Amino acid sequence: MSERLVVIGGDAAGMSAASQARRLKGPDELEIVAFERGHFSSYSACGIPYWVGGDVPVRDKLIARSPEEHRARDIDLRTRTEVVEIDVAGQRVRARDLESGAETWTGFDKLVIATGARPLRPPLPGIDAPGVHGVQTLDDGEALLASLDRAKGRRAVVVGAGYIGVEMAEALLGHGFEVTVLNRGEQPMATLDPDMGRLVHEAMDGLGITTVGSSPVRKVLTGGDGRVRAVATDSGEYPADVVVLGTGVVPETGLARAAGLPLGAYGGLLTDLAMRVRGHENIWAGGDCVEVLDLVSGRERHIALGTHANKHGQVIGANVGGGYATFPGVVGTAVSKVCDLEIARTGLREKDAREVGLRYVTVTIESTSRAGYYPGAALMTVKMLAERRTGRLLGVQIVGREGAAKRVDIAAVALTAGMTVEQMTALDLGYAPPFSPVWDPVLVAARKAVTAVRAAG
Amino acid sequence: MSERLVVIGGDAAGMSAASQARRLKGPDELEIVAFERGHFSSYSACGIPYWVGGDVPVRDKLIARSPEEHRARDIDLRTRTEVVEIDVAGQRVRARDLESGAETWTGFDKLVIATGARPLRPPLPGIDAPGVHGVQTLDDGEALLASLDRAKGRRAVVVGAGYIGVEMAEALLGHGFEVTVLNRGEQPMATLDPDMGRLVHEAMDGLGITTVGSSPVRKVLTGGDGRVRAVATDSGEYPADVVVLGTGVVPETGLARAAGLPLGAYGGLLTDLAMRVRGHENIWAGGDCVEVLDLVSGRERHIALGTHANKHGQVIGANVGGGYATFPGVVGTAVSKVCDLEIARTGLREKDAREVGLRYVTVTIESTSRAGYYPGAALMTVKMLAERRTGRLLGVQIVGREGAAKRVDIAAVALTAGMTVEQMTALDLGYAPPFSPVWDPVLVAARKAVTAVRAAG
Repeated sequence: MSERLVVIGGDAAGMSAASQARRLKGPDELEIVAFERGHFSSYSACGIPYWVGGDVPVRDKLIARSPEEHRARDIDLRTRTEVVEIDVAGQRVRARDLESGAETWTGFDKLVIATGARPLRPPLPGIDAPGVHGVQTLDDGEALLASLDRAKGRRAVVVGAGYIGVEMAEALLGHGFEVTVLNRGEQPMATLDPDMGRLVHEAMDGLGITTVGSSPVRKVLTGGDGRVRAVATDSGEYPADVVVLGTGVVPETGLARAAGLPLGAYGGLLTDLAMRVRGHENIWAGGDCVEVLDLVSGRERHIALGTHANKHGQVIGANVGGGYATFPGVVGTAVSKVCDLEIARTGLREKDAREVGLRYVTVTIESTSRAGYYPGAALMTVKMLAERRTGRLLGVQIVGREGAAKRVDIAAVALTAGMTVEQMTALDLGYAPPFSPVWDPVLVAARKAVTAVRAAG
Repeated sequence: MSERLVVIGGDAAGMSAASQARRLKGPDELEIVAFERGHFSSYSACGIPYWVGGDVPVRDKLIARSPEEHRARDIDLRTRTEVVEIDVAGQRVRARDLESGAETWTGFDKLVIATGARPLRPPLPGIDAPGVHGVQTLDDGEALLASLDRAKGRRAVVVGAGYIGVEMAEALLGHGFEVTVLNRGEQPMATLDPDMGRLVHEAMDGLGITTVGSSPVRKVLTGGDGRVRAVATDSGEYPADVVVLGTGVVPETGLARAAGLPLGAYGGLLTDLAMRVRGHENIWAGGDCVEVLDLVSGRERHIALGTHANKHGQVIGANVGGGYATFPGVVGTAVSKVCDLEIARTGLREKDAREVGLRYVTVTIESTSRAGYYPGAALMTVKMLAERRTGRLLGVQIVGREGAAKRVDIAAVALTAGMTVEQMTALDLGYAPPFSPVWDPVLVAARKAVTAVRAAG
């Protein structure tokens, strides 16, 4: 007796789930139908800035597995088909063919919701003018690239200085644009503490990117041709031949909300550790549309990141396919770069620690990526938070050049293991002059944190 | 009432201990006398291959703190002075001034033994001929550099294909030598399993380094001028204008042995977790002259590595200075490179696991340092060992190009925390296309290991 699995969303989480389930159960046991409203499947949204910037030569490099490849694996993937309703009690979904407009109901025994996130597009005058672009989908990327060609001048404004914002600043620089990043907060990279964000700000200055803090955008101004010509903030107008929005994303959970499924404080679906939607035996959810447990704060958070989406998909696929797997949660690791500046963070910022009632100490150190005497040794700044009294590691932020970002993995594993900073000082990390100083920068920070924890009492 | 601390050995462990003790106790509380038989203090022996190779322009770059700098911090460091006897019961050491030959006794309240390791110089005919060089000390490095200048031809033979051997092969290549590495074992890098060593072998071939396995050296042949002219093995003679020995080191514990201090199976001093010599209240030891606890196998091992020596020194200094610190042990992490080939390992090899009675599964995967579509994505091979039944991580070996080696830190922390490979699959590691594929190579290996553990039952 064959069951039917329906998957809503054809990107990382949905198609990983479908593929993993297919590996565990053949087509005679499990029919898999997947709906995707776009043209593409299983693509790397995180790669879009690098495609736009020209590091990745062609769009299709970002596609890990095309709809045809999925279909060849007995997954009935229907692109350009949007699910418009989930009937939970009736165990069926209503889908609309975006070409013909025709709607059909499809029943399911098991359902995976992987509807992703949508960019926050602040409801400002002019925000939909030609020349204003999001960079969430491959279609967005195509549109932006065309717009860069059409732009009359070489002035670009990026709204928002988060990951997408700074990555797009680099991409636009690569196209020869004069780039201004307008940021709501005082410093770029609000996922860092402001003191570390300031280092990013200074480095962006050095790269020729103008970063304007405390400047929420009020209005997008257009020219006679209707195309964007400037962006207005409280602090003034910034001329723009093209505008890129990096204003964050929110979970795309309209369908789930309408179906009465449980959502959290950030609007993301709430699941159990097996990625099953809470209270629903036969519905799973994963990727950018869910909230995840932050193992350090014990709170749910919304983190849109391809690596989590892929993990969710694997876990869902295993469970749907009759196996067993869980996603225990995240520690909040993220890495990024602007040109040769590397930015990384994991765990809690000061603000996060305060919010959950943790008392902490912080230390900040400067060290190098290699032995100081080895060519290419690059400076990096490491900030570390540790809990008072217990000395438990709470978070790490790193800003530096080559070799800085991925060092955050050391802290990510230590956070997962619940290590104290004193335990960390004994970590047996890879040492040789081309790879690290004799004390790895993360250990230098840990040593200083031990002293700070003791001093704070 | 002032105490006297005597330190034997002026490099990483000894001088870290002295410096840390000095930070905790001023000269009126603690007198510190340190003996060093060489000219230098606190230098990076690990950096010697890069100085010889020319990456590090001048010798003094390798010196972290000169004797004068130590003396300015109220440490009475006596260079060119060799301790020739430890009188444990009498709490004194006998030291010989290597210039004058004069000997004096110095009493101690506390003693730190940091005598390091000495290179294994196999007792072969001709091994002491001009043109045959060790690379353990700065003096060795000077001598080798002079010898490279004097060499009549451009043929170099490196004996031993461990860390020093492969690093010296790179250095000699940099001087325009034709390099042959003669190795006792079948594959280079015996600290890896042979299947991973084979990858190093192939890469060295590609770099133009001839690596000859299963070729223990029998004799060093000299020319009419008494200088080395060839190296003889069972498989033939290898012409050599210069020979570099990379044949490993053993703990330099003659003094300790004569004093009746406890030594382990590898001839290294045995200490407790506070780095105190077992059974001796007022004697500490650290660095290359001690054995350390391998946390994965539960056995003592001898690992000569600057990063451990520095940690030992810190721990000893804290304890001597009236504080408290421990060195819990190692997991056996080591990284190295030959030109652009990166080599890393942590935990147990197959052979190590068998020796301690562990049953295991192994998996080997290929992945890339960055997202596959991102420029510069470099291939790497990751081998992982996990315990049968429990799935506990036992070891990781990585061979690849840029971005390969330091990924071993992820496994080093996971080993320290006792994680299973299944727990590792959920690790929240830094992901962005310039830094990692969506599944980090270490996680790809962990996923495959989970399957292997299940299959092995």
